[in-house]
Amino acid sequence: MAERYGRPIVFLSDYGLADEFVGICHAVIARIAPHSSVIDLSHAITPQDVLDNGLLSLAWAREGGLVHAREISSPGVILEPVSATFHGRDIFAPAAAHLAVGTALGEIGPPIDPSSLVSIAWPSPNVEPSLVETEVLGVDRFGNVQLSGLREDLERAGLADSERLEVVTRGRTPTAVRRASTFGEVTEGEAALIVDSSGSLALVVNRGSAAEVLGLATGDPVSLRRPGVP
Amino acid sequence: MAERYGRPIVFLSDYGLADEFVGICHAVIARIAPHSSVIDLSHAITPQDVLDNGLLSLAWAREGGLVHAREISSPGVILEPVSATFHGRDIFAPAAAHLAVGTALGEIGPPIDPSSLVSIAWPSPNVEPSLVETEVLGVDRFGNVQLSGLREDLERAGLADSERLEVVTRGRTPTAVRRASTFGEVTEGEAALIVDSSGSLALVVNRGSAAEVLGLATGDPVSLRRPGVP
Amino acid sequence: MAERYGRPIVFLSDYGLADEFVGICHAVIARIAPHSSVIDLSHAITPQDVLDNGLLSLAWAREGGLVHAREISSPGVILEPVSATFHGRDIFAPAAAHLAVGTALGEIGPPIDPSSLVSIAWPSPNVEPSLVETEVLGVDRFGNVQLSGLREDLERAGLADSERLEVVTRGRTPTAVRRASTFGEVTEGEAALIVDSSGSLALVVNRGSAAEVLGLATGDPVSLRRPGVP
Repeated sequence: MAERYGRPIVFLSDYGLADEFVGICHAVIARIAPHSSVIDLSHAITPQDVLDNGLLSLAWAREGGLVHAREISSPGVILEPVSATFHGRDIFAPAAAHLAVGTALGEIGPPIDPSSLVSIAWPSPNVEPSLVETEVLGVDRFGNVQLSGLREDLERAGLADSERLEVVTRGRTPTAVRRASTFGEVTEGEAALIVDSSGSLALVVNRGSAAEVLGLATGDPVSLRRPGVP
Repeated sequence: MAERYGRPIVFLSDYGLADEFVGICHAVIARIAPHSSVIDLSHAITPQDVLDNGLLSLAWAREGGLVHAREISSPGVILEPVSATFHGRDIFAPAAAHLAVGTALGEIGPPIDPSSLVSIAWPSPNVEPSLVETEVLGVDRFGNVQLSGLREDLERAGLADSERLEVVTRGRTPTAVRRASTFGEVTEGEAALIVDSSGSLALVVNRGSAAEVLGLATGDPVSLRRPGVP
Repeated sequence: MAERYGRPIVFLSDYGLADEFVGICHAVIARIAPHSSVIDLSHAITPQDVLDNGLLSLAWAREGGLVHAREISSPGVILEPVSATFHGRDIFAPAAAHLAVGTALGEIGPPIDPSSLVSIAWPSPNVEPSLVETEVLGVDRFGNVQLSGLREDLERAGLADSERLEVVTRGRTPTAVRRASTFGEVTEGEAALIVDSSGSLALVVNRGSAAEVLGLATGDPVSLRRPGVP
């Protein structure tokens, strides 16, 4: 018996789950790579969110940079006629499935100059003594607020050991928050700064929404500073 | 080692994802057909939408018609006692799983007269010279409006090569739209008529909702005509 | 070729599907147990719903009680450093995956006294002649109202054969409902008491929402009694 081979495929889109788009891509993949599992990372990206373009650059930056790029255009890969509006079905799903079953990258299509691809410029925090100036990257279902700084940024600002920090946002009185390492350390309703599960700084409220309590939304500037420093 | 066999199963329902219904059907299938993958086409059909009855007729019409029909009632297939309210779990999921692992159709239950099954009468467009009268079949998450006509209907009306068309809807001034083949051809905010990924005519607005811009909802009549023709 | 082994894993959470949490747990499982299928029972539990704690006690009570309990803490199982906020990824998903591929329970971590675990006290109905006093356990997507009583409770109250029952709720005039065994027996818009797919008593309205019609929400007390009994 031949080995049943198929690497897992991670699937991220703005298709939502109300329509049949995600299911159809799963079906396309199942035909080409029946032994691949498909991991739905999320399909709730805001429709046509421009930040999507270049999203993959975050992955290749982390893996040491981009070496090869190919245009997905081989007749044996894409589903023709390629529709004007559903490239997930006709281009991306079949390409992922072919790669998952071991098709060589070179068979996907002709090479593209890697430097021609769009990259995302990730907002990097401004770090000074006793001050980290960040930006809200996102707010999750629980109202936790993810910031554009990392634990290392707190250390560089000399704030890693502060038990309390001041959160300064536009148009609001600065708010004191605790530095905590787990939700368990935080009293119900209290705001705290933690390092979240992806290593980022995050503002949280135990059994509450930090976004609501602190009046924050994606893109807002947030400064963290030592209390009492003006 | 015996071959691990299981055809993929496509699962479409009105169960939504807030409750455990979909997961329970997956579990029933996993017991009977552990090597089948289950493709969730959508579970967001409007609850108890009457158009559901006969839905399968669209599939068999496309595949050349219905040859055999069986009642799902064999004691070895259905889960007894069959509940009054969850036939997905007790009847449909086990039947699909048994067929996926190779159970013969005849073992599912006794034959039914195929002509006794409910079919959907799909709204067909009225085509005249320079005019296609259609109906809105649905609106997707992006606000794209799918119409009951196909590319062929435009051709029959002699409108296939028109660069602009007029969209006439009830109680609104006719709107001019472009004929486009990709979103890329359409200016931001502009309305256009395209052939969508399923081959149907569709009204779209680049980075906007055609349903909102044109004031359209499922079931609304929409006429497409040559501009200037009264 | 070694057997590809992996028991199915059932995944229930309050993560929702808007974020990437569920997908990340799937990815963790796929690494450790690539041949396990993951059945998403639901991810729409109300965030931080306290009833979650002890939820598993409903399962072990049904299976005859708890025999062994282990703390999930073995370095070979958990993903370190364990984050403060994403124990699903770092603790529960890897533990489930290890158990699915056959890791012995004892290798998960040191024993815990089973009696120290939190259990849920399920609301049990009060049954008297011609009266069953229950509570609303939940309302599903269709507006069906699940009660804390079973078919057996109706029998103990001598109400099993009543064709009509009176539903008494706080601050409303008692409502007469039919006793039905399928939706098909109920006129459109009519309220009925049925035994639902999990064996529980449930109030339903054919093509309508019983929760709306009867003004009921989770936790509300509901008495079922013989009509005319004050």
